[in-house]
Amino acid sequence: SSHAVKKSCGSLSYEARAELPDTHPMAAELLKLMEAKKSNLCVSADVTDAKELLDVAESLGPLICVLKTHVDILQDFSLEVTGRLSKLAEKHRFLIFEDRKFADIGNTVKHQYEGGLYQISSWSHITNAHAVPGSGVVKGLGAVGRPLGRGCLLIAEMSSRGSLAKEGYTQAVVKMAEENCDFVFGFICGSKISNKPEFVHMTPGVSMQSEGDSLGQQYTNPHDVICTRGSDVIIVGRGILAAADRVQAAETYRKAAWDAYTKRLSDTK
Amino acid sequence: SSHAVKKSCGSLSYEARAELPDTHPMAAELLKLMEAKKSNLCVSADVTDAKELLDVAESLGPLICVLKTHVDILQDFSLEVTGRLSKLAEKHRFLIFEDRKFADIGNTVKHQYEGGLYQISSWSHITNAHAVPGSGVVKGLGAVGRPLGRGCLLIAEMSSRGSLAKEGYTQAVVKMAEENCDFVFGFICGSKISNKPEFVHMTPGVSMQSEGDSLGQQYTNPHDVICTRGSDVIIVGRGILAAADRVQAAETYRKAAWDAYTKRLSDTK
Repeated sequence: SSHAVKKSCGSLSYEARAELPDTHPMAAELLKLMEAKKSNLCVSADVTDAKELLDVAESLGPLICVLKTHVDILQDFSLEVTGRLSKLAEKHRFLIFEDRKFADIGNTVKHQYEGGLYQISSWSHITNAHAVPGSGVVKGLGAVGRPLGRGCLLIAEMSSRGSLAKEGYTQAVVKMAEENCDFVFGFICGSKISNKPEFVHMTPGVSMQSEGDSLGQQYTNPHDVICTRGSDVIIVGRGILAAADRVQAAETYRKAAWDAYTKRLSDTK
Repeated sequence: SSHAVKKSCGSLSYEARAELPDTHPMAAELLKLMEAKKSNLCVSADVTDAKELLDVAESLGPLICVLKTHVDILQDFSLEVTGRLSKLAEKHRFLIFEDRKFADIGNTVKHQYEGGLYQISSWSHITNAHAVPGSGVVKGLGAVGRPLGRGCLLIAEMSSRGSLAKEGYTQAVVKMAEENCDFVFGFICGSKISNKPEFVHMTPGVSMQSEGDSLGQQYTNPHDVICTRGSDVIIVGRGILAAADRVQAAETYRKAAWDAYTKRLSDTK
């Protein structure tokens, strides 16, 4: 039946899924630009310098569908930086995804999402949350993000060794997403976990060179993620950032992930 | 057997537990100052204005063992603010606990803990983490925090409705704490979950007036937390911050929680 799930969804193109009546507007925007740019590549811009972040956004922007950020590791963050980032997102047509992993009670995440120095909700199209606090985390974030047209991903699985996001936990996350689909439009996960074609699956821990790091990270490759596991978007960090030529590396990942998607489409026809 | 666990630990005073050979230095410091100040009250300073945060620290400092912060909701954070907070912590002998709920892979949380605008590791005695990423999250944080003499609490249970931190998840958190006790010295939890007297249990969601909020928070009272459930420290937010007289409210909570502790000690003798 897991094969049946994969088949039923895998046969729909990103474009077709964007047009479904119940697809969240943020998911629709993402799926459309993926098809237009032929990119299901999200780059994880884990840099500590604002200039480098903007350089990555400018140079890799044309090749990616999503730029994933951790603005809380920038040594020189300012709202001017995110202002410039937003302009680059428009110019190159990608979405900004602040990977904040909100994980507190609703009343707290509301403030963390909207306020503080980072004002994440004002510039990040997409954010994400752990489901561990219960659905209050999504309701708190949604109270801020829905009026702004933002969308949220729930973390259903993690790429790190010994993660507790598995089995019953993952199932509870899927249920929470379905019950809050006015704000949640997809998952951070290792493989497809919902057969609803409206949900977008994004998978971190993708590398074509490395198998892991000393702090428990574990890697898999684009073909495996998109074709075998049925996810939609690969998230690549060090595989691209640590390359001598980042543009060339990003193009290699983009092509590998896009080829895997077209193969999945033709396999399931 | 849950009763036996409670009995064996409940009979040891905070002071005696501070002196045990395997108690983490941060736990020892905390347990000692709790005994000296007769306070097992942690105030959750969920304010958005730096001046108000410092006012809370100055006025409630003498009554608390820990000040819990969310500096990422301050509209006017600067390292000058945390510098002044550190001086107040010394003056009134309390510990600062930035409730950041780190929840990413080791390589990321390392940067989030040390860097960015907040530089949490430079001023926060205690921080906390979700165990959902696996033990890499603790190893990443520990790489930064151990050389600085910091300590970490793992979130084993949450006070919010529908939390997924329960049963097998909570058991896995206890195991992760035991395996990383060079940095982890206790838990955020609803009740005592480890019978090792070296671990400190801290419980949020405590209020003597309210039963909950509209975003899933659920409250319990000081006597229940300390005496019945065997936790060590109550964490109080809105019950004190929303009071007309915060000092008086804090003293009411301090006395209630301390009386519950002395009752627990005499009950188990």
